[in-house]
Amino acid sequence: MSTALKSVRSIAPLLDRILVQRVKAEAKTAGGIFLPETAVKELNEAKVLAVGPGAFAKDGQRIKPSVQPGDKVLIPQYGGSPIKVGEEEYTLFRDHELLAKINE
Amino acid sequence: MSTALKSVRSIAPLLDRILVQRVKAEAKTAGGIFLPETAVKELNEAKVLAVGPGAFAKDGQRIKPSVQPGDKVLIPQYGGSPIKVGEEEYTLFRDHELLAKINE
Amino acid sequence: MSTALKSVRSIAPLLDRILVQRVKAEAKTAGGIFLPETAVKELNEAKVLAVGPGAFAKDGQRIKPSVQPGDKVLIPQYGGSPIKVGEEEYTLFRDHELLAKINE
Amino acid sequence: MSTALKSVRSIAPLLDRILVQRVKAEAKTAGGIFLPETAVKELNEAKVLAVGPGAFAKDGQRIKPSVQPGDKVLIPQYGGSPIKVGEEEYTLFRDHELLAKINE
Amino acid sequence: MSTALKSVRSIAPLLDRILVQRVKAEAKTAGGIFLPETAVKELNEAKVLAVGPGAFAKDGQRIKPSVQPGDKVLIPQYGGSPIKVGEEEYTLFRDHELLAKINE
Amino acid sequence: MSTALKSVRSIAPLLDRILVQRVKAEAKTAGGIFLPETAVKELNEAKVLAVGPGAFAKDGQRIKPSVQPGDKVLIPQYGGSPIKVGEEEYTLFRDHELLAKINE
Amino acid sequence: MSTALKSVRSIAPLLDRILVQRVKAEAKTAGGIFLPETAVKELNEAKVLAVGPGAFAKDGQRIKPSVQPGDKVLIPQYGGSPIKVGEEEYTLFRDHELLAKINE
Repeated sequence: MSTALKSVRSIAPLLDRILVQRVKAEAKTAGGIFLPETAVKELNEAKVLAVGPGAFAKDGQRIKPSVQPGDKVLIPQYGGSPIKVGEEEYTLFRDHELLAKINE
Repeated sequence: MSTALKSVRSIAPLLDRILVQRVKAEAKTAGGIFLPETAVKELNEAKVLAVGPGAFAKDGQRIKPSVQPGDKVLIPQYGGSPIKVGEEEYTLFRDHELLAKINE
Repeated sequence: MSTALKSVRSIAPLLDRILVQRVKAEAKTAGGIFLPETAVKELNEAKVLAVGPGAFAKDGQRIKPSVQPGDKVLIPQYGGSPIKVGEEEYTLFRDHELLAKINE
Repeated sequence: MSTALKSVRSIAPLLDRILVQRVKAEAKTAGGIFLPETAVKELNEAKVLAVGPGAFAKDGQRIKPSVQPGDKVLIPQYGGSPIKVGEEEYTLFRDHELLAKINE
Repeated sequence: MSTALKSVRSIAPLLDRILVQRVKAEAKTAGGIFLPETAVKELNEAKVLAVGPGAFAKDGQRIKPSVQPGDKVLIPQYGGSPIKVGEEEYTLFRDHELLAKINE
Repeated sequence: MSTALKSVRSIAPLLDRILVQRVKAEAKTAGGIFLPETAVKELNEAKVLAVGPGAFAKDGQRIKPSVQPGDKVLIPQYGGSPIKVGEEEYTLFRDHELLAKINE
Repeated sequence: MSTALKSVRSIAPLLDRILVQRVKAEAKTAGGIFLPETAVKELNEAKVLAVGPGAFAKDGQRIKPSVQPGDKVLIPQYGGSPIKVGEEEYTLFRDHELLAKINE
């Protein structure tokens, strides 16, 4: 999806949505040799950029999101809403679609 | 969908519906050169024109919409009910379908 | 759907159903020139003729319909149960299917 | 569906089911001329013959049916369970499938 | 489905299941003439042989089944789990699938 | 599904799952004549080997399973997760999928 | 799904997700003869490596996962999200998808 936004920082996710950016795979090997583009696999790791205030539970309370900006997460293979800001691609997931947090 | 309305301001969304108008993409480049029509991408940004009173939660209370008239929002690629008033196009989404608020 | 009713006024919608009649598009231009039938677009505006008592919420209370007889509403492109009384066509929607109220 | 019942009066609908019989369309015009069988449209009006005690709400209370024996109702175009008793056809609907009551 | 049971009386339905046996259609006319097998219609009437203790409602209470052993019921055209005991066929329905009780 | 388990007794079903083993049909007639393999019908009877602690109800309480180890049950024609331990086949059903208890 | 993670220990499952690693089938027979690769069946046994904090129940409390790290479990034939860390494959299941615990 296209936007005319100047910065991704202007995006404030609604409800339980989480804005992430996919981690780019290294384009060279451990030994420093550059890989041809077709050998670079897309990773399912992403960095959380912004989180919504949480969806509403049945009792009207907000359900706190499971992650925070700065967290690294495992994202599912499919799903999410892709957003393009300038030349960069981002994705909006719902909180429960994220698979795991990555502790480094 | 067609209407014979004179003004979009006469539309008062029901329940959790949100009336938005898509932001039009610039038809010229930063340098001032006009783009051919096929190069103008449709943006997924929209301006909120009117919001419904909110859907009912299980306890009978209204769930307050997440956005207000004047807000700029990211809208999903698909979905929503298109409405035509005069020559202008508008869309009605349900509150939870909106992806994010855009802070400028 | 066919009926042998003499008047649409004998129809009392049940639960959350709303009986509406679609607004007919003007068959002539602002300048008074009659349009050929194929140029007359079907409008998504309708007038509310009768409303049901409301569906039951989980606590056993009726959920009051969002509209009243006499209201003008935006109706969705698809859905609803068409009813024919004499030569006139009407439609029964469920309350939550109506998109917006039209304030004139 | 076939039965060997002697009378439709022996059918006591369960839960929220409503037993109705479709109103037969007049086979002659207002002027008294008999219509060929293919010109007689099936009507979506029916007479309520028997109602169940109501389905159970979440709190264990029965939800009272919206209609009573003797009521005339608008029935949906599709759905319902057809029952044949002798040469007559009847239909069982669930209460919420009935569209409207017809007040005469 | 096949069983090696000696008697259908050993089947105790679980939760909201109801064990019924379809009423067999008369293979001869009122006048005593035997009908060819293809002229004998399968009836949608059945006799209740055993009922389960009822499914659990949300509050943990059992929902009492709508019918009792010995009741005659109208069964739906499709659905149910067929069970064969010896040469006889039986069917297990869920309580809410039964259409009506037949009072004789 | 394959396992490298030494004994089926090491399987402890989770939540509302029930471990059963299908009753094998007699491969000879009452008179003692052995049936060809194709004439031996698969039975829908099974013996309960182990039961899970029960699924959680909405109030956080466990729902007690309907059957106990040692019970004989009627199982549905389709569904369940097949498990192979050594040369024997077992099946895991959810408690509500079991049709009836067989009292002998 | 690909990752650039150095260790599977950095994965902390979210909500009710459970990280497991499938048990590898013995590639040789009990007698010590190596099996050709095509004769090695994939097992449905797995070891639990990490568990999420649990999904939220309707009352806002976390539902405690049914298993703990170190447990051996039966996993379903299909489903789960596969994750690759280095040359090893792992899978993330939701707690309720696990079939049984294996007690050794």
